[in-house]
Amino acid sequence: MAQKPSIPKGTRDFSSTEVAKRNYIFSIIKSNFEKFGFQPIETPSFENSDTLMGKYGEEGDRLIFKILNSGDYLEKVSDEDLSAKNSKKITSSISEKALRYDLTVPFARYVVQHQNELEFPFKRYQIQPVWRADRPQKGRFREFFQCDADVVGSNSLWQEVEFVQLYDTIFTALGLKGVNIKINNRKILSGIAEVIGASDKLIDFTVALDKLDKIGEDGVKKEMLEKGISESAIEKVQPLFNFTGTINEKIEKLATLLAASAEGTKGVEELKFICNAINELGLQSASLDLDVTLARGLNYYTGAIYEVGAPEGVAMGSIGGGGRYDDLTGIFGLKNMSGVGISFGLDRIYLVLEELGLFPETVATTSKALFINFGEAETLFSLKAISHLRQSGIKVEMYPDKSKLDKQFKFAEKKGIQFAVLVGEEEMKQNQFKVKDLVSGEQVTVSLNELVEKLK
Amino acid sequence: MAQKPSIPKGTRDFSSTEVAKRNYIFSIIKSNFEKFGFQPIETPSFENSDTLMGKYGEEGDRLIFKILNSGDYLEKVSDEDLSAKNSKKITSSISEKALRYDLTVPFARYVVQHQNELEFPFKRYQIQPVWRADRPQKGRFREFFQCDADVVGSNSLWQEVEFVQLYDTIFTALGLKGVNIKINNRKILSGIAEVIGASDKLIDFTVALDKLDKIGEDGVKKEMLEKGISESAIEKVQPLFNFTGTINEKIEKLATLLAASAEGTKGVEELKFICNAINELGLQSASLDLDVTLARGLNYYTGAIYEVGAPEGVAMGSIGGGGRYDDLTGIFGLKNMSGVGISFGLDRIYLVLEELGLFPETVATTSKALFINFGEAETLFSLKAISHLRQSGIKVEMYPDKSKLDKQFKFAEKKGIQFAVLVGEEEMKQNQFKVKDLVSGEQVTVSLNELVEKLK
Repeated sequence: MAQKPSIPKGTRDFSSTEVAKRNYIFSIIKSNFEKFGFQPIETPSFENSDTLMGKYGEEGDRLIFKILNSGDYLEKVSDEDLSAKNSKKITSSISEKALRYDLTVPFARYVVQHQNELEFPFKRYQIQPVWRADRPQKGRFREFFQCDADVVGSNSLWQEVEFVQLYDTIFTALGLKGVNIKINNRKILSGIAEVIGASDKLIDFTVALDKLDKIGEDGVKKEMLEKGISESAIEKVQPLFNFTGTINEKIEKLATLLAASAEGTKGVEELKFICNAINELGLQSASLDLDVTLARGLNYYTGAIYEVGAPEGVAMGSIGGGGRYDDLTGIFGLKNMSGVGISFGLDRIYLVLEELGLFPETVATTSKALFINFGEAETLFSLKAISHLRQSGIKVEMYPDKSKLDKQFKFAEKKGIQFAVLVGEEEMKQNQFKVKDLVSGEQVTVSLNELVEKLK
Repeated sequence: MAQKPSIPKGTRDFSSTEVAKRNYIFSIIKSNFEKFGFQPIETPSFENSDTLMGKYGEEGDRLIFKILNSGDYLEKVSDEDLSAKNSKKITSSISEKALRYDLTVPFARYVVQHQNELEFPFKRYQIQPVWRADRPQKGRFREFFQCDADVVGSNSLWQEVEFVQLYDTIFTALGLKGVNIKINNRKILSGIAEVIGASDKLIDFTVALDKLDKIGEDGVKKEMLEKGISESAIEKVQPLFNFTGTINEKIEKLATLLAASAEGTKGVEELKFICNAINELGLQSASLDLDVTLARGLNYYTGAIYEVGAPEGVAMGSIGGGGRYDDLTGIFGLKNMSGVGISFGLDRIYLVLEELGLFPETVATTSKALFINFGEAETLFSLKAISHLRQSGIKVEMYPDKSKLDKQFKFAEKKGIQFAVLVGEEEMKQNQFKVKDLVSGEQVTVSLNELVEKLK
């Protein structure tokens, strides 16, 4: 019996229009990655389970898609384990491979495995799908692409500077002007924790502080107290409640605030270096701002932390993020390899470009013209012209059947093909082509060369 | 403890050079697919198991990678089934999703699921990875890309004609001139089976006949007799043992041979139509030949069958193949949808282009120039120039650290970067750039505009 076809929840089919628009974003990201000296690598869709497991925390382990071993996979499982029905325990016996969960761990694995073939600092980009067994919801999928650029093997802060430029360059090239690049530094967060004397409360602190716009100073302080942050601690960081001004003014305030913390001061200096450089170099359309509540990836970032927000007026979470992580490759036995990188959120960028009408019309992959089918001799004649047009780089197609004219024209219109080319006996005799613009209704008869010019 | 990193057998990491070369092939295939009116779609990497299972035969089912359900997947399995340790039976309880095995079944599923959004005939192309739990061997991987173009919804033989042109166009564009497009027709094979009076012996017959070059007429006949094909049957198809001449001459021989078979005659007519059209239209560099031993995909093809061989002198199996399959979408409940399509074998095409040295040098993604790092002020000055160069479309990078000159130059050389740009105090003062060609050793001092021109 025929099945009613469907796809797994959290996955998507992409139509031609969607593929074309996604490829448009990819191609702009790629070409600019390359202009900045990043080179592409690709890794397998699945890795050995022990490459991935234990790298993303317990929650991550749960969300990794595991692949069942081939053949009689139960053979090796002990009867005891089976009768205990302990899924978690049995998994490692019946599954040795797992789908990629992100691009960072495979990248670290790649660097260690191929360290003798690589030149360091190694600048790579990677644009591939990843899979997560997360509960699907609006804008969250079980299969989605990540677009990452990372450098590994140098501590130089110039790399942080270049990543700010890279964000600015790519979003400007996508026509998405005025994105807000927020920057912070893990060391500043550590400094704040030191000052408030409660490093275990750091997340509670930043989460509360992040609500300043929404619930006001009193609300934030109330929440902090509730979370067990002392009144005297809150007093010490009072300047953060009125943390306005230019990025340089903010940095000065922080310098004072964190003066007593060596690590915090280091963070301020790093930030200052990056901001001064960007100030000198200028940005095309983005703005750079310091956001001390930015704590994404707190567990692994060790230096700079980035997050990019859509331009004002567009309601959308972050459309990019990244940061510096020391000891990226340590998990695979290669020590002292500092890495820094950024990521672009394809799906959200897509939605923003769509909302703002920023996809160029030329993105479409539709044929420029449809040759109407009038029968065998006409088709053969048409196909000769079609070969010539295609060799001139023009997308054209022949309707394959001698169907009713009406049907063929409707086909062209529905597919958004602009021109219909009609070749009947008369045209064949004259070696000419009747071209109808299906948008304007205008109709002209032209030679093959003129046809090429018209459709180009 | 650190793990020694590795990847699952049958999978591959791709270096920058490899990615660049693969993308070169993809981009030529894609752009020509589009010129021929095909539009891209993409489907999820995993499908519901019941979409895939049972579509590729028992062997296929075995080779499909299954994904383990998330969470406590054993919960639903009965104790009875568990203690029986029947892997095959339990699979359907603990796995609901499976990795794509080819692009054809997902395409059929897509067409049925989206039939109301599509215009027919629907021409789609799809370039995505597929996964098979096959025993890995030279040139056979567990993860590999397929590049398919198919039309569904029309019986017109003009489509078969266009696919021959498409093969010719793409291989010519890849610089792979003189590929051998072999064509056959399922109906001709049926006709032969009818004439020899043994349709169950058809595969044995074509396999034996295919060895004519190797073991000679007597050897082939001996094998046929051994396989139970009668002497009188072999006599009836005697012309196939001397099946030479132009494709037109071959078709005429077949027409005579299969005159008594209605289906065989239909096959000959179809073939004649395609060959006549190609004869009229001409091919750029490929040759078209009839090969009656071509029986690939015998189980599903119903009309034309294609296979493409590498140019003479290159030892490589087929680098492409395809055919017509009636009722493509019947398995998902949509009847009377004939499809025809072709596929390109990326990995083999890659090997052939490599062997023949056909990859253009411009394929590389390496930066054109490396700016040598002399310190902070010089780097800031350089980065301004670098921004300008990148905006002019040039790939350039800055060495991030003020390392020894020697080390920086070695880095450029090893990465295959042609130019080193040196900016010291003197150059900054003069607003000039010292450019060293690392290949020729030549060194000049230029302005920024001259630098753009030099690196473009």
